[in-house]
Amino acid sequence: MNVLVFAPHNDDEVLGVGGTIAKHVSLGHNVYVCEATSGRDKERLANIRSEALNAHRMLGVKETFFLDLPVVGLADIPRKELNKSMYDIVMKIKPEVVYIPHKGDMHIDHTMVAESAMVALRPVNNPQLKAIYAYETLSETEWNIPSADNVFVPNVWSDISDTIDKKLEAMKCYKSQLYDFPHPRSLDAIEALSKLRGSTICVANAESFMLIRSLI
Amino acid sequence: MNVLVFAPHNDDEVLGVGGTIAKHVSLGHNVYVCEATSGRDKERLANIRSEALNAHRMLGVKETFFLDLPVVGLADIPRKELNKSMYDIVMKIKPEVVYIPHKGDMHIDHTMVAESAMVALRPVNNPQLKAIYAYETLSETEWNIPSADNVFVPNVWSDISDTIDKKLEAMKCYKSQLYDFPHPRSLDAIEALSKLRGSTICVANAESFMLIRSLI
Amino acid sequence: MNVLVFAPHNDDEVLGVGGTIAKHVSLGHNVYVCEATSGRDKERLANIRSEALNAHRMLGVKETFFLDLPVVGLADIPRKELNKSMYDIVMKIKPEVVYIPHKGDMHIDHTMVAESAMVALRPVNNPQLKAIYAYETLSETEWNIPSADNVFVPNVWSDISDTIDKKLEAMKCYKSQLYDFPHPRSLDAIEALSKLRGSTICVANAESFMLIRSLI
Amino acid sequence: MNVLVFAPHNDDEVLGVGGTIAKHVSLGHNVYVCEATSGRDKERLANIRSEALNAHRMLGVKETFFLDLPVVGLADIPRKELNKSMYDIVMKIKPEVVYIPHKGDMHIDHTMVAESAMVALRPVNNPQLKAIYAYETLSETEWNIPSADNVFVPNVWSDISDTIDKKLEAMKCYKSQLYDFPHPRSLDAIEALSKLRGSTICVANAESFMLIRSLI
Amino acid sequence: MNVLVFAPHNDDEVLGVGGTIAKHVSLGHNVYVCEATSGRDKERLANIRSEALNAHRMLGVKETFFLDLPVVGLADIPRKELNKSMYDIVMKIKPEVVYIPHKGDMHIDHTMVAESAMVALRPVNNPQLKAIYAYETLSETEWNIPSADNVFVPNVWSDISDTIDKKLEAMKCYKSQLYDFPHPRSLDAIEALSKLRGSTICVANAESFMLIRSLI
Amino acid sequence: MNVLVFAPHNDDEVLGVGGTIAKHVSLGHNVYVCEATSGRDKERLANIRSEALNAHRMLGVKETFFLDLPVVGLADIPRKELNKSMYDIVMKIKPEVVYIPHKGDMHIDHTMVAESAMVALRPVNNPQLKAIYAYETLSETEWNIPSADNVFVPNVWSDISDTIDKKLEAMKCYKSQLYDFPHPRSLDAIEALSKLRGSTICVANAESFMLIRSLI
Repeated sequence: MNVLVFAPHNDDEVLGVGGTIAKHVSLGHNVYVCEATSGRDKERLANIRSEALNAHRMLGVKETFFLDLPVVGLADIPRKELNKSMYDIVMKIKPEVVYIPHKGDMHIDHTMVAESAMVALRPVNNPQLKAIYAYETLSETEWNIPSADNVFVPNVWSDISDTIDKKLEAMKCYKSQLYDFPHPRSLDAIEALSKLRGSTICVANAESFMLIRSLI
Repeated sequence: MNVLVFAPHNDDEVLGVGGTIAKHVSLGHNVYVCEATSGRDKERLANIRSEALNAHRMLGVKETFFLDLPVVGLADIPRKELNKSMYDIVMKIKPEVVYIPHKGDMHIDHTMVAESAMVALRPVNNPQLKAIYAYETLSETEWNIPSADNVFVPNVWSDISDTIDKKLEAMKCYKSQLYDFPHPRSLDAIEALSKLRGSTICVANAESFMLIRSLI
Repeated sequence: MNVLVFAPHNDDEVLGVGGTIAKHVSLGHNVYVCEATSGRDKERLANIRSEALNAHRMLGVKETFFLDLPVVGLADIPRKELNKSMYDIVMKIKPEVVYIPHKGDMHIDHTMVAESAMVALRPVNNPQLKAIYAYETLSETEWNIPSADNVFVPNVWSDISDTIDKKLEAMKCYKSQLYDFPHPRSLDAIEALSKLRGSTICVANAESFMLIRSLI
Repeated sequence: MNVLVFAPHNDDEVLGVGGTIAKHVSLGHNVYVCEATSGRDKERLANIRSEALNAHRMLGVKETFFLDLPVVGLADIPRKELNKSMYDIVMKIKPEVVYIPHKGDMHIDHTMVAESAMVALRPVNNPQLKAIYAYETLSETEWNIPSADNVFVPNVWSDISDTIDKKLEAMKCYKSQLYDFPHPRSLDAIEALSKLRGSTICVANAESFMLIRSLI
Repeated sequence: MNVLVFAPHNDDEVLGVGGTIAKHVSLGHNVYVCEATSGRDKERLANIRSEALNAHRMLGVKETFFLDLPVVGLADIPRKELNKSMYDIVMKIKPEVVYIPHKGDMHIDHTMVAESAMVALRPVNNPQLKAIYAYETLSETEWNIPSADNVFVPNVWSDISDTIDKKLEAMKCYKSQLYDFPHPRSLDAIEALSKLRGSTICVANAESFMLIRSLI
Repeated sequence: MNVLVFAPHNDDEVLGVGGTIAKHVSLGHNVYVCEATSGRDKERLANIRSEALNAHRMLGVKETFFLDLPVVGLADIPRKELNKSMYDIVMKIKPEVVYIPHKGDMHIDHTMVAESAMVALRPVNNPQLKAIYAYETLSETEWNIPSADNVFVPNVWSDISDTIDKKLEAMKCYKSQLYDFPHPRSLDAIEALSKLRGSTICVANAESFMLIRSLI
């Protein structure tokens, strides 16, 4: 089974889906990550790319695609171009399960990736597709204007009790993105969210998603 | 795998989940139906119960439970009583998958069944539970006040192309509940909805649900 | 009475409002269609324009305006330009009734047309305006992220039992846009939706809309 | 044309629909008001009923029906009974246009009347029905928990510039229900709301409604 | 300053507002707690009441009011009675700040308390009132049907880094209500939620609320 | 205490926050206004800027910042640029209280300012920040598509009975933006809204806001 994770920025895929990626891998699934944007300059780009690859190795990601689009810039490039970049990845991977960022996140790049993903994932072009999930991203999802449409309303839970350690290790690879608690992008906050989501389904650790579309 | 369908009134389970019930059965799952209310008088009760059993036989339902609670009366009996009736069924079946009516339907009995189902299905009491889906009921779901919370927003599709015929046959068993098109509770309307939902995922026939909670 | 239909792409006006356009015409109203975008190259443009004009002739549209803006490009041209293009049409037609696409559709062009229409239709500039309705577009409305704001919640029904045939004939004119069922942009899906919407108000065929604003 | 206004309590119909009632009357429509509840004791009941009849005479209401159900009690009587009381009125009047309270109002009686009205107004039983509108009630609509579903979102405007005086006179008949500004149930607040709603459509005075369902 | 916390069941006030209660007390405010329901039998009642009083002593609550209404029974007693019970408390305390449960919680008693609180807290009767907040309750708020109206959308944060210990100690007093992690009503889950909410505003621990109404 | 008001266009800050600005000033707070866009040509720019400064003098604004970005153009400049312009102002003022336009307003510039404000106001960069409020703007807020996310749902009230006169005087300074009633941007409509919002909390005049985030 092919699984595809769209990340607006390097580290979003770990924050939102890290434990579930490792779980997919442990089940023998092929997990692909597509990073939409990259660093603002050459040096940062090289660094973040290396961090991403280390994190993905930790999680067992099969292949990482870097679209190298501009950070805080997805709303400023032609929509067709963004759509095409993402569509090409989808056509290449033919995923059965896809994880996308939450369209209600504060960062406009998240909204853009979520919207273009939907175009790429049209049922007519993806007969193999079984499920699309939106994930939450600490420091983006909870910082937006709290409206009916922006709010993240979890209805899918993934037990990651066996892979929370890998998630935290993967996050440690993102040295340039990690802060000390009480910053939300910190190991302690990640663990707190994971325990909270876990407690909802009475397991030690979980990641939560909003279902966008699924076939049963 | 045990599957449980809660129906406020006899026929809701066919309108909302008929094709998917037959599909579960064809996959070897045990499907149980719990009818919350029954007829208004003895004669009608006997008749509708017989219709229900015929319909369920057609679909392959393993066992039907009749709670015999009063029609248009679920809001008027003590909440504890309704909760307990439904909880007892859940504890008996230990379902992995549950279908409940949409809380935003026009008929108050639908709302009551949906709310009490959630109490009965608390994660802490149901470690085996994998998914809860809300189904749509022609002539109830589309006739309520169209508010943000009442609206049925499908995000789960079940391909019933192979079982639409059984669904229609099962509905024919409910002679007392079936009307001629263009009444929404008619074979033609059922088929139209089924084709529309099918077209969304590019199959001939489908039933749609709103995901309430799932574990992946 | 002047009626104006804004279509992001050629064929949206038939999918969403085809039967109601023919009904307006049969009542002696003047119906104008404004197509915001056109084909991607000269050849396609000529073809789709010819298809549109045929479809509109079938429905009795009085005049069609082609803005010739770029497909999947409305978010990338200056907002002022889009606003002005649509405002000019509104000022020319002085419509009493306007149909716009649903802002929650998957295609960004639909959102852009809906938003710019609202600017053009400000009450202060349109004392003659009686109603604005948003229509649904098969293969766009049901494929977007299913959020509180994206979901199409019909509260207006137009009985098109007498004009469904014209709607289907008009759709057949759009050969380049029409697919075989179970694609949602197929004659069968159009008919299924039309029967479903009809059944809600107990007529054979209907088109549904979301009311944006009306004066009674 | 027959018009029916459901009021949970005497005076709601004036607060929410007073100007529009007088406008209907001036257009030759027959307006009926159904008061769901009555005074808490005999004396108050006689008084409020007399106030209601005076107010309705002022507006030109053709006939007033008093259901005499208990105030703050509609959630405590059997749902079937409430449904039947309202259904009987609907069957008697066969209205083309109906005004109901907003289901999101603070007072539970408003919610109950709105819900039971929907049952009584099922399309299948009301082929003559053209529109259902929900009205706002000062001191109820704006005092509830401000949630996505409770909020009153106007999309229908009725110009009452010619009948605002009658509305205010009718309200003066309800001496027992009228307070001094800045209480929201005061003449000044009524006028402020009326001017605000008017300004949205650029007229001097208006009443606003939420469309529940209409046929065009 | 007088602060009033309405709890449907003993322990809700600690789960939702425990740290903020202790903070209010440390600022010299008078905090009152009103417990709407009590134990199902005499023995449990005595026990839970004793637990509540111990917890409240730990937090510094000035006085606790027990309404002794039936558990899972608030929807079954006359609405007027519930309204009056709560109104009497409000009139006695004349609170400036009030905390109520979230109306979207799974437990119907929570909804009932929230609704009746709004009636008791009408601005016209409470000129002293400055703010009403809804709090979240682990094992209720996250277990309901995840709809637009049910979802808890925090927009108020209270830094409880200095009082989290008191909150946890108070919760320990509720032996009969406390479970081991990963149950959501456990010390670990409480702490995880507190850290997550804290991280949103970059402090170690916080409680979150939804603003219902405030005067600034 | 430093207070910052973001206005997409000159006069929005008076329409939405005028009375509350004057109240802040009367309490000794420093109020800063940041105007995002300016006039379309040199002459208009000079005029509107002079009007703004007069209005602000009337209200007691300490300093006004003009970003001079293009009107109806905020969606067309690079997002990073808009973010940076607003971030620089926030870093300069270090506000404790911020007022932003409502993201659901009809004018796209309002949405853009609201979204970029959230980025600038991230908790991690603003430890001093206590509250963010969204204000309503007559002729923008009520003219947008009335969806769940666009609707303005007030939950904060500011009594401006003592400063309504200053608000009206300030608005008179904006001669180029002021119309005669019944235009919504007129003195009469402003007063009507102010009385309506006042009546909700039983005072003569008020401004209402939607809370975005607050720390208590």
